[in-house]
Amino acid sequence: MNYRSDTLFVDTQGAGFLRLGARLNGFLSGIGARAGLLNVFVAHTSASLCIQENADPDVLYDLQAKLEMLAPANGPYRHNSEGPDDMPAHIKTMLTATSCSIPVRDGKLALGTWQEVYLIEHRARPHRRRIEVDFAGS
Amino acid sequence: MNYRSDTLFVDTQGAGFLRLGARLNGFLSGIGARAGLLNVFVAHTSASLCIQENADPDVLYDLQAKLEMLAPANGPYRHNSEGPDDMPAHIKTMLTATSCSIPVRDGKLALGTWQEVYLIEHRARPHRRRIEVDFAGS
Amino acid sequence: MNYRSDTLFVDTQGAGFLRLGARLNGFLSGIGARAGLLNVFVAHTSASLCIQENADPDVLYDLQAKLEMLAPANGPYRHNSEGPDDMPAHIKTMLTATSCSIPVRDGKLALGTWQEVYLIEHRARPHRRRIEVDFAGS
Repeated sequence: MNYRSDTLFVDTQGAGFLRLGARLNGFLSGIGARAGLLNVFVAHTSASLCIQENADPDVLYDLQAKLEMLAPANGPYRHNSEGPDDMPAHIKTMLTATSCSIPVRDGKLALGTWQEVYLIEHRARPHRRRIEVDFAGS
Repeated sequence: MNYRSDTLFVDTQGAGFLRLGARLNGFLSGIGARAGLLNVFVAHTSASLCIQENADPDVLYDLQAKLEMLAPANGPYRHNSEGPDDMPAHIKTMLTATSCSIPVRDGKLALGTWQEVYLIEHRARPHRRRIEVDFAGS
Repeated sequence: MNYRSDTLFVDTQGAGFLRLGARLNGFLSGIGARAGLLNVFVAHTSASLCIQENADPDVLYDLQAKLEMLAPANGPYRHNSEGPDDMPAHIKTMLTATSCSIPVRDGKLALGTWQEVYLIEHRARPHRRRIEVDFAGS
């Protein structure tokens, strides 16, 4: 087994879903990966991961609306010092994923037909987000 | 370290929890795995994973009822083109897990006394679901 | 690649967030780990994992309040035989994480500036919790 890792930076444009699949497949082809497992880790507490549909953009709209409903901006929260979008961002991160391990086959992510890997930015303003990728396999 | 992977197909009977533990332990014994880590990945956006109690069936009933409450069939959702159970299924998938890494000891999943690995089918109708398993260890 | 695993036991003091980072880094330094991936797995269905902010304690207060809101003690639940805090604990576990894979760099968890790894005890009374850690890397 071989092991390779890298750090990716993603610039977000405020709250929303960003496709990561092409970046992740680029890392895999760059290291010549064929088969194994890729772990994706978001090094933040107000941005997270989600593997979801890549067809109808309304799905992403509805997912984001649901996250707003589960963690509304008008709390009530004790933690208000970093703005009205910060505590909801922590809650949304807790309810989704910080790490995800994705199978690699034939040098690519073996995602389902409708799957895409998304970074979800939960803060209102743009942020630079650090993502750690770790591949183990052949 | 050795690495082995496989693809499992699971036929669901509509919305509900399906036990995966026996299938996963079957894969482990088939490859002669002793100790390491097994990653389970669901290649879908309307079915997901959950490690939960394997004793009182009422627990699964209550978990499913909670998922219905968090993502009711009567929206309102923008994404309605694939039926009233599709967008709720995406939300339920987002709030549970698409991948999970489970320790393997003495050739078996080292689950807790009350734990079982479940595939949760979130769609109303039966589906054939693809699950990728990746083992690394000895 | 090397592979090492261990079992950690954590004594909780009832519902709340417990820091795991120091224990996990202790395991890594004990085995001389340098770079790779550490998987953390909670062998229970009423305690779970969460990677969240380690600065303002109000964040943890608000996260716990949100979990209470999503899974209140006063149901209604079918599963009541193990006390009013048991079914809510299962729901909270389902909505957070049972396993998490964390990158290791320079012998330590490569967490973000504000991140800490928490075990969340969802039961009202103290429990001894089993956590399996699996490291693969160099």
